[in-house]
Amino acid sequence: MKRRFKCVCAYDGTDFKGWQSQAGGGTVQDFIESRLEQIFKEKIRIHASGRTDSGVHASAQVFHFDADWPHGCDRLLAALRCGFPDSIQIQKVSFAKNSFHARYSVKRKRYIYRLYEGFAPPKTTRYRWSLGNRRLDISVMNKAAQALLGEHDFTSFSANRGCEKEDTVKNLMELKVSRRGKEIKISTTGSGYLYKMVRMIVGALVDVGLGKLTKKDLERILEAKKRGQKIQSAPARGLTLEKVWY
Amino acid sequence: MKRRFKCVCAYDGTDFKGWQSQAGGGTVQDFIESRLEQIFKEKIRIHASGRTDSGVHASAQVFHFDADWPHGCDRLLAALRCGFPDSIQIQKVSFAKNSFHARYSVKRKRYIYRLYEGFAPPKTTRYRWSLGNRRLDISVMNKAAQALLGEHDFTSFSANRGCEKEDTVKNLMELKVSRRGKEIKISTTGSGYLYKMVRMIVGALVDVGLGKLTKKDLERILEAKKRGQKIQSAPARGLTLEKVWY
Repeated sequence: MKRRFKCVCAYDGTDFKGWQSQAGGGTVQDFIESRLEQIFKEKIRIHASGRTDSGVHASAQVFHFDADWPHGCDRLLAALRCGFPDSIQIQKVSFAKNSFHARYSVKRKRYIYRLYEGFAPPKTTRYRWSLGNRRLDISVMNKAAQALLGEHDFTSFSANRGCEKEDTVKNLMELKVSRRGKEIKISTTGSGYLYKMVRMIVGALVDVGLGKLTKKDLERILEAKKRGQKIQSAPARGLTLEKVWY
Repeated sequence: MKRRFKCVCAYDGTDFKGWQSQAGGGTVQDFIESRLEQIFKEKIRIHASGRTDSGVHASAQVFHFDADWPHGCDRLLAALRCGFPDSIQIQKVSFAKNSFHARYSVKRKRYIYRLYEGFAPPKTTRYRWSLGNRRLDISVMNKAAQALLGEHDFTSFSANRGCEKEDTVKNLMELKVSRRGKEIKISTTGSGYLYKMVRMIVGALVDVGLGKLTKKDLERILEAKKRGQKIQSAPARGLTLEKVWY
């Protein structure tokens, strides 16, 4: 009898073409589905909390699938510990109710974006946006971030992903910039995110920190509710999906 | 007029074929020399504090070279900030006396080896030896490490690198195992190291921590002064050249 499994996984997104399965392969989903096929001897479709773009990382991405497995979750986890490149790691496997859906049951998600004021050392540069000689005023950034908190239509902070229709109103409960030495972290928790939304918010906040944009500009951009505003999208490498709540 | 330059650089060794220049290229030295050739319009030979193996990292490798440069060190550093993959970073450039030699003037070098008790998260696995379900007794390891401290002929803890003749007596001033949660660090400072010496010492210490070898075994192996002892060499990925003293 098929049961529903909920899995938590982490990945270093640098060398993948994003989460979502695609024709040429090379995505995280492709690797996981191909490993599941080895284990279950049949094609298994997995459903994640959401896709992540090429180069974006995850500390705790959640996905589910249905399969017939005669043993316990521990044994499935042990099987899923192997057969992957080091850059993908399955961390937890548990049974879920059939009503659970990794994408539709999401309550909120946290992303963390990491920056480095200076030239990030090679061991960290895969996971940080290195700012070189530029310096950020994080207190101004935190004040401007207030403009984006709460429920808004975030169309201005999104890119087009083709034909997909999606509710463009999202609720941001957290958007906070913090510093520890040269490391700067932007943490955001929200009900959901549009395509490229986190990276565009980070890009805009960095421009605020550099004095190129103001809180007023962010308000104006948000109000426009239109794509194609002049805001940069922060590089994928700094972004990590940190946690998903159900 | 040619002057001698001393440089400090960091690299993520994962994707390089080690430090030392070789026919097919793909080594850290090859990348740096080719960048110097772009800048100086002539072939420049660089000399490092020592080679590192394929997959081994450096936080502060030191090298020197002689070149005719009409500007200051800052300007050379700025030029050396670009033209590299993210995995190589030139951090400092300074003038050195002509008597300075990056290899022959070394007083001591520190290496740090990083391990993880458990399954290291993907973002850290390039820089750690992940021990899975194995657990280490670090207090036994620290006691056994005493056997290797001081001046010894370390032939037993080395691999053959071909024809090279080298003084096999080295002085270890530090060999210390420490733990912080699941992260285990083995730190060693010595006058110099034979080929694969650090990784073989780490491999032996890990076997001590697992109860497979004792301090007595290490003493016996050291005393043999002979290659080909039954000790494992720890994976390259965990090893970082941390500091060089002159």
